[in-house]
Amino acid sequence: MFLLATLKHKRGGGEFSHTETLCELVVENLRENGVRSEIVTLVEYDIPPGTKSNMGKGDEWPMILKKVLAADILVFATPIWWGNHSSLMQRAIERLDELHNELRDTGKSRLTNKVGGIVITGEEDGEQHITGSISNFMLSIGVTLPPMCAVSYQGAYTRATKKSLARKFREEKQTASAAESMARNLAFFARLLVENRIPEGKSG
Amino acid sequence: MFLLATLKHKRGGGEFSHTETLCELVVENLRENGVRSEIVTLVEYDIPPGTKSNMGKGDEWPMILKKVLAADILVFATPIWWGNHSSLMQRAIERLDELHNELRDTGKSRLTNKVGGIVITGEEDGEQHITGSISNFMLSIGVTLPPMCAVSYQGAYTRATKKSLARKFREEKQTASAAESMARNLAFFARLLVENRIPEGKSG
Amino acid sequence: MFLLATLKHKRGGGEFSHTETLCELVVENLRENGVRSEIVTLVEYDIPPGTKSNMGKGDEWPMILKKVLAADILVFATPIWWGNHSSLMQRAIERLDELHNELRDTGKSRLTNKVGGIVITGEEDGEQHITGSISNFMLSIGVTLPPMCAVSYQGAYTRATKKSLARKFREEKQTASAAESMARNLAFFARLLVENRIPEGKSG
Amino acid sequence: MFLLATLKHKRGGGEFSHTETLCELVVENLRENGVRSEIVTLVEYDIPPGTKSNMGKGDEWPMILKKVLAADILVFATPIWWGNHSSLMQRAIERLDELHNELRDTGKSRLTNKVGGIVITGEEDGEQHITGSISNFMLSIGVTLPPMCAVSYQGAYTRATKKSLARKFREEKQTASAAESMARNLAFFARLLVENRIPEGKSG
Repeated sequence: MFLLATLKHKRGGGEFSHTETLCELVVENLRENGVRSEIVTLVEYDIPPGTKSNMGKGDEWPMILKKVLAADILVFATPIWWGNHSSLMQRAIERLDELHNELRDTGKSRLTNKVGGIVITGEEDGEQHITGSISNFMLSIGVTLPPMCAVSYQGAYTRATKKSLARKFREEKQTASAAESMARNLAFFARLLVENRIPEGKSG
Repeated sequence: MFLLATLKHKRGGGEFSHTETLCELVVENLRENGVRSEIVTLVEYDIPPGTKSNMGKGDEWPMILKKVLAADILVFATPIWWGNHSSLMQRAIERLDELHNELRDTGKSRLTNKVGGIVITGEEDGEQHITGSISNFMLSIGVTLPPMCAVSYQGAYTRATKKSLARKFREEKQTASAAESMARNLAFFARLLVENRIPEGKSG
Repeated sequence: MFLLATLKHKRGGGEFSHTETLCELVVENLRENGVRSEIVTLVEYDIPPGTKSNMGKGDEWPMILKKVLAADILVFATPIWWGNHSSLMQRAIERLDELHNELRDTGKSRLTNKVGGIVITGEEDGEQHITGSISNFMLSIGVTLPPMCAVSYQGAYTRATKKSLARKFREEKQTASAAESMARNLAFFARLLVENRIPEGKSG
Repeated sequence: MFLLATLKHKRGGGEFSHTETLCELVVENLRENGVRSEIVTLVEYDIPPGTKSNMGKGDEWPMILKKVLAADILVFATPIWWGNHSSLMQRAIERLDELHNELRDTGKSRLTNKVGGIVITGEEDGEQHITGSISNFMLSIGVTLPPMCAVSYQGAYTRATKKSLARKFREEKQTASAAESMARNLAFFARLLVENRIPEGKSG
C-alpha cells in the first residue's frame, strides 16, 4: 500500500507525477514477487491538519488509515521540496501520530509486523536526508525496514512525458535494479513476518 | 512578519498553540527594539498544495505572500512533529518555490535585504535539525540570517494554560535571553540592510 | 557488536562516557535474550581518515572491520554534538564506504543478514535526526532495521557518576523499556535471519 | 579563512581534492572583491577528538583556532559522505564547542561580527542537508550568514584532473555564478560588520 505525496493533482490536468511513475515501477516489481499493491494519492483527498486519527466532519484520512492498517507493506512516496519530503507526506506522518501515542501508552503498535519502503523523486538534492527522516518515523512507530528498501530518482525532466520517464526508469540500470531489490526485500520480509510474528514485550 | 505553522486551529477551540505563545514573546522583544510585527496563522487560511505563487481560485496564499514581500523581517514559526517542521510550514516553503525560480532565472531575489528568524516549539526532539532545514531554505532564497536568530522551547505541558506557559518562557533565563538576543539582532540587521542594500551581481 | 563513538578517552581518566553507560544497559538486555555482545570503543584505536577498508600502515580499522563482519547484530552508538553523530561515528561510516562500493558493483553486501541498532546520548537535541542519518546508511549498505531498534537519552548530568547514571537509566521507565524492546527485537530478527537468509537478486 | 575537511591527504599523493578545487574558485572570487584568503587543510594536522579548545600535548587545533579567531570570514568546506559532512568537519565543530560554552555563560561570542560561508562537493546527495547542519551551528555560535553564502558541486569525476575540474567549475554557469554571488555577499557583509559592530546585550 503506497501513500503517494505528490503535489500534482490529476484534476489539475497537465503535469504528471514523477513520483507516481516511479511508484508504478515498484508496483510492477512487487507484482513479479506475488504482491498486489494500491497507490493512494494524498492530494486527491481532504486531509485536514491535526495529529488525531480522525479530525471530524469531512476528514477523509480515516478511510486511508483503514487501508494502512490492512496492508502488510507500507510505502511512503514523496517528491523532494527544499531537501524535505512534501507537505502532504508530512501531513500523513502527523495524522499517524495518534498511533504512536497508543504505542507509547500500551507498548503495542498497530503497525507491528508491517514492512516499510520509501520512494523519492526530485529535481533537487535531498534523497538520503528524506530516507533518514522517514526511516526514523517508521521504525519508531513499529514498522520493520528491510535492507535497500528505498528507491529514488533525481533529475529535471521538463520535457519528459510519463511514457518516456517510465522507460527511462526501466533502462537506467541503477534505478531498475534498486526497484527490483526493494520489491524483492519487501516481499520477502512481509512473508517472513506473516509466518513469524514479532514477539510482544511483557508489559510494553 | 511571522508565518505561524501551528496545527492548532483557533476555531477548533480548546487547545492553545505553544508556538504562538513563544512568537508573542519575540514580538514583545521586537517591540522593545522599535519593530512592529504581525503573526499570520497559516492554519486559518486555505493554502492548496503546489509550487506556484498563485494556485488559482480560492487560494489565500497570494494575500499572505503580499505581506511576506512587504516585510523587512521574516520569521518562520513551527511546532516539531517527528523531527521536522509541520506540514503547514512545509506548505509555505513549497509555495515560495516560484520566488526561487525567479532568483535562478534572473539572479535577483524579491526577498533580498530581508532578515530571517526562526521560532520552534515541541514536545519532541528536533529543533536544531529544523533550524538547519529552514536556514538552508532562507539563505538559498535570498534572506540574511543574523547570529542567534532562532529561539526554541521543548517540553510537554499538558496542564499548562496559555498564561502559565507565557510566564514560564519569561522566567526561564535561557528562553527569555534567546528571545531577547534574537529580537535585538533581527532589528539591528533589518535597519542595517535598509541603510546598506546588498549589491547586485552583474548578470545574476 | 557495538561501535561506540564517544569522544571520551579512558586513558584521559576523569570523565565517563554516558553513551557507553547506555550501551551497557542494552548489552544487559541482550544477554537476557541470549545474545553475547562486545563494545569496541573507537577513540581507543588509531583510525585514519579515508574511505577504504584498509588505509595502510598503522591503521587499526581492519581489525575492527573483522569484528563487524563476524557479528550478527551491529549497533552504532554515538553522543550528539551539534545535532549530529560524533566525528568518530562519521569516521566509521566513511571507513565502511568501500563495502558499499562492493555492493554497488556486485549487488551483494557483506552486511546482508545483519541486524542494526542505534544508541544515542546527549545534552543536546538531535536524537531523531541522527537515528535517521544512521538508518539511511545502514539500510543502504545491506543491514535490516527492526522496529524500535534505537534507544536514546538526553540530559545534562554534570554531577552524575557512572553508577548513578546507570541506575537512572534503569529506573526511568521510558529508557528501560526502550532498551528492552530494542534488545528483544534485535535478538528476534538476528535469529530469524540466521534461519531465513535474505534471497539474492539475479545479477545484483 | 577556509577550514577544508577533505579526507584526501596531500602526502598520500595520488588523488586531488574536489572540495579544495571548489574552494580555490571561491578564493579567486573573493580576491576580486579585495579579500585575501587562506585555506587550512584539516587532514594535514593532528586534531584529537574532544570538545575543548586545547586537548593538550601534540594538539595542533589551538594554532588553527588562532586563525579562526583572527579572520573576518569563516568558510566551512567539506565533501559529502553518506549525506553528512566529513568526520574532519565534524571534528572541527566539536573542537569549537568550548566557544559556545563561553557564549552560553557570558552572552558574548568570540565569533561575533564574523561572516560565514559553506563549500560542499560530493558524488552523493546531501548538499542542502549539510548546508542546514553547518548553518545551524554557525548561527548558534555567533556567525552571520549572508544570502547565497553556499556553493556546491555534485558529480562523479573519476577521470577528472584537478585542472579539468577547475575548468569545469568555471564553465558551468550555475557553479561559477554561485561562487561569484557567495564571494560578493561574504565580502559585502564582512565590511558592513567591520564598520557596524553588532550591539551586545545587557547581560548576555
